[in-house]
Amino acid sequence: MTSHAITHLRVTPIAFRDPPLLNAAGIHEPWALRAIIELETACGRVGINETYGDEGMLQVLAQAAPALQGLSPWDLATLQTRLQALIAPAAQPSEFLGEQVSLAPGNHASKNLAKVFSAFEVAMLDLQGQLAQAPVVDLLGGAARTSVPFSAYLFFKYAAHIDDPDAPDPWGQGLTPPEMVAQAQRMIDAYGFQSIKLKAGTLPPEQEVAALKALAQAFAGLPLRIDPNANWSVATSLRMVEQLHGLLEYYEDPAPGLAGMAEVARACEVPLATNMVVTDFDELAQNVRMGSPVRIVLSDHHYWGGLRATQQLGRVCQTFDLGLSMHSNSHLGISLTAMTHLAAAVPHLAYACDTHYPWQDEEVVLGGRLRFEGGRLKVPTTPGLGVELDRQALERLHENYLRCGIRRRDDLGQMRKYDPSFTGRQPRF
Amino acid sequence: MTSHAITHLRVTPIAFRDPPLLNAAGIHEPWALRAIIELETACGRVGINETYGDEGMLQVLAQAAPALQGLSPWDLATLQTRLQALIAPAAQPSEFLGEQVSLAPGNHASKNLAKVFSAFEVAMLDLQGQLAQAPVVDLLGGAARTSVPFSAYLFFKYAAHIDDPDAPDPWGQGLTPPEMVAQAQRMIDAYGFQSIKLKAGTLPPEQEVAALKALAQAFAGLPLRIDPNANWSVATSLRMVEQLHGLLEYYEDPAPGLAGMAEVARACEVPLATNMVVTDFDELAQNVRMGSPVRIVLSDHHYWGGLRATQQLGRVCQTFDLGLSMHSNSHLGISLTAMTHLAAAVPHLAYACDTHYPWQDEEVVLGGRLRFEGGRLKVPTTPGLGVELDRQALERLHENYLRCGIRRRDDLGQMRKYDPSFTGRQPRF
Repeated sequence: MTSHAITHLRVTPIAFRDPPLLNAAGIHEPWALRAIIELETACGRVGINETYGDEGMLQVLAQAAPALQGLSPWDLATLQTRLQALIAPAAQPSEFLGEQVSLAPGNHASKNLAKVFSAFEVAMLDLQGQLAQAPVVDLLGGAARTSVPFSAYLFFKYAAHIDDPDAPDPWGQGLTPPEMVAQAQRMIDAYGFQSIKLKAGTLPPEQEVAALKALAQAFAGLPLRIDPNANWSVATSLRMVEQLHGLLEYYEDPAPGLAGMAEVARACEVPLATNMVVTDFDELAQNVRMGSPVRIVLSDHHYWGGLRATQQLGRVCQTFDLGLSMHSNSHLGISLTAMTHLAAAVPHLAYACDTHYPWQDEEVVLGGRLRFEGGRLKVPTTPGLGVELDRQALERLHENYLRCGIRRRDDLGQMRKYDPSFTGRQPRF
Repeated sequence: MTSHAITHLRVTPIAFRDPPLLNAAGIHEPWALRAIIELETACGRVGINETYGDEGMLQVLAQAAPALQGLSPWDLATLQTRLQALIAPAAQPSEFLGEQVSLAPGNHASKNLAKVFSAFEVAMLDLQGQLAQAPVVDLLGGAARTSVPFSAYLFFKYAAHIDDPDAPDPWGQGLTPPEMVAQAQRMIDAYGFQSIKLKAGTLPPEQEVAALKALAQAFAGLPLRIDPNANWSVATSLRMVEQLHGLLEYYEDPAPGLAGMAEVARACEVPLATNMVVTDFDELAQNVRMGSPVRIVLSDHHYWGGLRATQQLGRVCQTFDLGLSMHSNSHLGISLTAMTHLAAAVPHLAYACDTHYPWQDEEVVLGGRLRFEGGRLKVPTTPGLGVELDRQALERLHENYLRCGIRRRDDLGQMRKYDPSFTGRQPRF
């Protein structure tokens, strides 16, 4: 075993405050979960990463841990082989899925291999970068751009969580068009974003469309996107997009299923985007074989199998004239940094990326919250990921995790606290 | 400028003896050309590579040289951007192409950008590996296999070149079935290959098929391939494959054009392979859109745009259930080593690779000729490519180049010396 061999894996689940953001599945709970990965080598180096923190993911990570034993940080091919042997797709129970399967590909049991590979790959790339004295983006082929644009990710929201003893978040209520314009203004003032994405599929569609029109008027010139998360029927999708004529950069997951998206695509000029019906290479092939009703794939290295796999996704998209954008979940700065390295290394990724980052106020990296300029993040130029763990913060966030009691995300159950009749059945509208 | 910045490019054209191998375009000339690339950094490190050595390639390399100035060896993305600005596809004259366009994708002017990027990329990966103290395969994600299998690449051939004062090569004449069995035996004895590829399209098809049948009988159990290089009509292709029932691992480029291949595919059970009609990502997309008449792509990092691009090709093939094998041209050990790193890093590349290596007896790397064991090459584990230039050999091979008078490959013109009526028109049979 060389001195660079991996000897220890530490997985620390954390929790941080999350506002009451509405989505098609229900509403965000007061705490969001992540897991912090640390890989330590015989020579004492530590590579870090951030991934999903739900119970199911923690179990799969534990199951996968033996794959790392004695591995060189460079040897991702062996990691893949070992994980394939350890994680049979069918061996994963679906009990962790609840009814949110289609909403969050990161929760699919079928993604376990890709998710765990990604969780370890990024930490190994962090180690590689330390060994090579090169930033991760250089290990991926160098930076096609020196900074990466993100978009303002707006949510309809309540002013406060139900039954919550803590102080409400500073964003206030976001339900009416003026409130959503105010939300956007606040976010753009703080981050400088140059494009806007509106999470929809939660209020009556006309109300959501009215909000988008108000945003278009208030922020003329900024590209706009709307994402009903497959909660609109094909008919509703077509009726709404007609009202949004000329306003949309892309139309994200209006209707459920690739077949539903294809129906929408046939009658709609706006390009369709997805993070729900093209979530792996097989589904991408299926989309191409259907004549590419989905024109833009929202990548996410956390469940597409890592940074290198997402680069390859970029090549597949380029080969078949598909656009590439980037999806996000609630996350902190390690994920955001990995997303930034990746987006910089994929020239074909030409859209501003999604990020939930403004909705969090915590950080787990030294130096605290990452700073955006003009809606962009600079690509780190220091070795590895270029961020280090703040161990005090990690401890505090882990204590949150122990205390909060949440072990798997349940937006549906949370919504039922507000409205016991809420079923979550899709499409709702 | 950092101490690792690239400050010098040296391109040294070389020539080495090549036997009178017959192919669809004509016959190999007595000398084959390559170019040796050296990239030197401010700190004195040298990264090496081997690429095409014809006049057209040397001109494009000269035109591309400014792209390297001050570049970090890690910064392949900037290299790509700069080369795109320097090498407009349309700006390249086609005068270097002669009539061999379809035979050798490496000669296509449309491939200039991909060829030059690859020529520099591999040398930059060699530098990266030296900086990171990691073999190139690790920079590509680690070795999925510790050794790479190659196939015995048989050619019909004459005993000696026409009008050649030098001694004939040791392989003797290869025209009849027994002579081809003897050629295979000699090659397998020396290299241990476990599969056989027969270059065809040059003698009457029945004679070539008889040779393949003799090989099947003499080497029962070894996978066999035949490559008529698009020199058979669709009818001939189908007539011949019927006679080869049950003998072929794959059927490489029997008939010209993707449409011709599709016609063959419709009536033939053996999977079709190509290095002629799927030679870039656009053609690959076209193949998929046609329902994938070509089932196996023969990659070649020299014209597919480098090692990383070929890895991405692997992912595209995997996504669309296409197989992946590897093509070769006359080459020496630097190319062979790069091919080995690459093949090791692409799990999806499951076929033994082509190589012309047994047809050469020269070497330009320290330590001389690379050694095969059981038809396989071990993947280097030392930093970078793991081979170094033998400067005396380089000088000698460059003197060959200066002396031999050949500046662009012309198999057609060479064949006309034997047969002035030879036209090279395809398909010939």
